[in-house]
Amino acid sequence: MRVALDEAGALLESVMRRLGHDAVEAAVIADHLLDSEIRGFRQGGLARALSIAERPARARSPMRVTHETAVAARLDGGDNVGYLVGRRAMELALSKVRAHGIAIVAAHNTWYTGMLSYYAEMAVAEGKVAMIASNATAWVAPHGATEGRFGTNPICFGFPGKDAPVIWDIGTSIIIHADAMLARRLGKKLPEGVAYDAAGSPTTDPAAALSGALVAWGGAKGSGLGLVVQLLGIMAGSTVIPQDLQGFGMLIVAMDPGEDFGAKVSEYADWVRTARASNPDAPVRMPFERSMRDRAAVRAAGFIEVPEVIHDKLRKLAA
Amino acid sequence: MRVALDEAGALLESVMRRLGHDAVEAAVIADHLLDSEIRGFRQGGLARALSIAERPARARSPMRVTHETAVAARLDGGDNVGYLVGRRAMELALSKVRAHGIAIVAAHNTWYTGMLSYYAEMAVAEGKVAMIASNATAWVAPHGATEGRFGTNPICFGFPGKDAPVIWDIGTSIIIHADAMLARRLGKKLPEGVAYDAAGSPTTDPAAALSGALVAWGGAKGSGLGLVVQLLGIMAGSTVIPQDLQGFGMLIVAMDPGEDFGAKVSEYADWVRTARASNPDAPVRMPFERSMRDRAAVRAAGFIEVPEVIHDKLRKLAA
Repeated sequence: MRVALDEAGALLESVMRRLGHDAVEAAVIADHLLDSEIRGFRQGGLARALSIAERPARARSPMRVTHETAVAARLDGGDNVGYLVGRRAMELALSKVRAHGIAIVAAHNTWYTGMLSYYAEMAVAEGKVAMIASNATAWVAPHGATEGRFGTNPICFGFPGKDAPVIWDIGTSIIIHADAMLARRLGKKLPEGVAYDAAGSPTTDPAAALSGALVAWGGAKGSGLGLVVQLLGIMAGSTVIPQDLQGFGMLIVAMDPGEDFGAKVSEYADWVRTARASNPDAPVRMPFERSMRDRAAVRAAGFIEVPEVIHDKLRKLAA
Repeated sequence: MRVALDEAGALLESVMRRLGHDAVEAAVIADHLLDSEIRGFRQGGLARALSIAERPARARSPMRVTHETAVAARLDGGDNVGYLVGRRAMELALSKVRAHGIAIVAAHNTWYTGMLSYYAEMAVAEGKVAMIASNATAWVAPHGATEGRFGTNPICFGFPGKDAPVIWDIGTSIIIHADAMLARRLGKKLPEGVAYDAAGSPTTDPAAALSGALVAWGGAKGSGLGLVVQLLGIMAGSTVIPQDLQGFGMLIVAMDPGEDFGAKVSEYADWVRTARASNPDAPVRMPFERSMRDRAAVRAAGFIEVPEVIHDKLRKLAA
């Protein structure tokens, strides 16, 4: 069904208030979820609000900086959801990088960190480069195994541009946890080759996959990147053996690339776009281009299409 | 033919002296090349010495730190080969990270940066975490194109362990430039699907590939990582439009993960190794394990097998 953007945002805010967040927190979470939905990352959009609500309730405490220097900070997320912790962590990193050219923030004791590109956009808006990595529950089997050992573990690099930024934001499994969650909600099958059931056999049943493991992206090389993200998360303060939807880590490194860097990024991006295309009708795209284009189109239209099963559940939660 | 390790090292040093390096420089380069050879990365081993010699001679100048703060440095490589520049850059980064917990070094005006894991080993030996990225000549076609736009662009993350480090060091093309160079030297074909000729048609001829382009690894996702490395290289001071075997950039971020991190890395690695394997005879491996095992075995044996065509050319160069 068609839902106006304002209405979708208000609905998300209401749900987040009902879950015990104050008005500012609810607005921060809703903005991130709606941006996911608008950018076509629907697994992390309105449907994600349901996953947040379904998590067993636990007492949370305010976020707290437990260690701080001019260029580094350690942020205890107090078991708050990652949308809040990630934003605070990036704000901290940006406040430090302005003065010193580089900064590192290690956030932990959090869960569901959202689209890392959301935080990268905060950095590139100030002309900074960011690397962000976030680990998670052990939903993903390493290359050569059929049992989970690391999370869907996104990693993201953001670069400011003169016209538009270049943001590379990927998950290190073929499909992500939210894909399986959404498929289960909508009663759909998973593609072949992306998941194992609890016994280690290939499966296309999302419920079986959620109690089994997802397949790492990119063979041995890609699986290695998933491990790297897990270790960066542990460095950020994640528990070594990850727990179910808690104790995630998020590491942010923010860098000041100097004044003329944005122009160089755009010059290089323009040159990449001129590369002779394999298919002349499909010129080479830069990472994040499609996302920005989709967002602009949806904002202009003013509405999104939402599956009724998702909308109904959100309405019930908000009531 | 069988060559003793001592003899191979001395031969490499002689060649590097003949190319105008002083004794210390020659030893640094030879150590790196021999370590590549011993670890089974033969494209970057003895054969690489020939590629260094074949590069058109240009005046080089001493490396120079052109900007420096407590946590950052910019290093002009003076068109010295990357084996020298990378080592100096990592030494600089480590001298800074000890005091401040994080450091960034941007090196540029260099070429052939070698195995990034070589520098990562310097960092993990001191209990530090390192991210290293290095861009290169535009030998690699982005996903969806058949023409070079970025280098084979390695990226590496190194983590200290209690027993052994975890080092992930990959190239972002399916095969690397040195693979094509070595295949051409040995008169071998390339595998299918890894290269285009100058007209953009698939090729297995290494000479055609070297005047065409290599295929990016990992489809759209992996190609995006190649772009990321190119942009990190540009941030480090590489020219925007890369030139032929010069003007490469190398970015190093060194981080202090705290005292108990190595134990956590080893605990996590042990847990990964226990994951139920797809093939019970092939337990899950951690990145860098094979490399360390191969190195230990070759060092114990005391010799390497070198193709005669490579050995003869090195002997001639050293004479």
